[in-house]
Amino acid sequence: MNIRKCLAANIVAAAALAAAGAAETINLPPPDMDSGKTVMQALKARHSERSFSEKELPLQELSGLLWAANGFNRPDKRTNATGMNKQTITVFAIMKSGAYRYDAKANTLVKVCDQDLRPAIAAQQSFAAKAPVSILIAADLRDPIYRAPWNTLTHYDAGIVSGNIYLYCAAKGLVTVCRGTMDRDALKKALGLPDGIMLHLNHPVGYPANHS
Amino acid sequence: MNIRKCLAANIVAAAALAAAGAAETINLPPPDMDSGKTVMQALKARHSERSFSEKELPLQELSGLLWAANGFNRPDKRTNATGMNKQTITVFAIMKSGAYRYDAKANTLVKVCDQDLRPAIAAQQSFAAKAPVSILIAADLRDPIYRAPWNTLTHYDAGIVSGNIYLYCAAKGLVTVCRGTMDRDALKKALGLPDGIMLHLNHPVGYPANHS
Repeated sequence: MNIRKCLAANIVAAAALAAAGAAETINLPPPDMDSGKTVMQALKARHSERSFSEKELPLQELSGLLWAANGFNRPDKRTNATGMNKQTITVFAIMKSGAYRYDAKANTLVKVCDQDLRPAIAAQQSFAAKAPVSILIAADLRDPIYRAPWNTLTHYDAGIVSGNIYLYCAAKGLVTVCRGTMDRDALKKALGLPDGIMLHLNHPVGYPANHS
Repeated sequence: MNIRKCLAANIVAAAALAAAGAAETINLPPPDMDSGKTVMQALKARHSERSFSEKELPLQELSGLLWAANGFNRPDKRTNATGMNKQTITVFAIMKSGAYRYDAKANTLVKVCDQDLRPAIAAQQSFAAKAPVSILIAADLRDPIYRAPWNTLTHYDAGIVSGNIYLYCAAKGLVTVCRGTMDRDALKKALGLPDGIMLHLNHPVGYPANHS
């Protein structure tokens, strides 16, 4: 992965966005609220899976997944609880076509890097790079509230997001696994993230390996 | 709350259990797998609520709630993911009639204290003592694997349990809120928990205040 190229791409992308508006932004369809298993059946099916089909997720599925992870279910509140309602979690969709920040309010994916960062997500565990998308869960700890002893508060927040991803996948026939392993330095550079942003967890998501 | 009385009760309870078997154990019915909202509808309804009816939860509902939080959905694995599959989370049901450890394998509640510990759960926030049950999420950090830098690994695990509780409640018309506030010292003494057990979060759970 060429980090320098990606940093350059970030600058270019920012310039392009400023010039061309939504050229680097994917508009997501509204989440499909009418499909999927019940919570109880999803809890029954919930498991960690490390084999994935390479089949891409349709935008409709990606929209539901991201909304489940960190979307708004009310004008100012989310599907996922956060400590003191700080809502400092951001999720990224790491895909072959690039890395995107989920803008939950606009229901869009904003491209922040042109490179395929799935190898940096996978690090030493190559299985993780085969999933068509990995959801990267980050938290912004720059608010002074997150000084010790509250510096672990967003760990809980990240866990809740992870749980939502697991249950969405279980409900919709997708598979996933929660991981702490990743090349954090490479990802932070490529995504243009400043100090104070913590990369908590990632979730490769895809169809099961035997999916036809 | 009389901690000394509770510690004595623990010893008595242990003796009674040794002598009388399941006298202090509540057998839970199997979780009801056929009711409740879909994951998407539960995510839509998910919110934090701090007002509760005092109406008790039926054992059937308590069973489902505890299973969603930390139950087995396979012979050796759970509804909730844990870091490195360590499964070191234990949940307690803190109720008027006493405090109970959820034995997920046996699907029972094992009484560990005769006292109503809801005031210790509530600490300075009295609303929390009104819920008929609080789920207390604890983790056993005595395994050397949890030395730094892995000492925050079970925070994620606790967050996942919290997320499951939120979605179970949203699916079944119950209300809850995730809290970090509690009188940890009093709870650890009353529950007879040794050093190395971390009390992460608690979830008062009940019917909505306007429930008839």
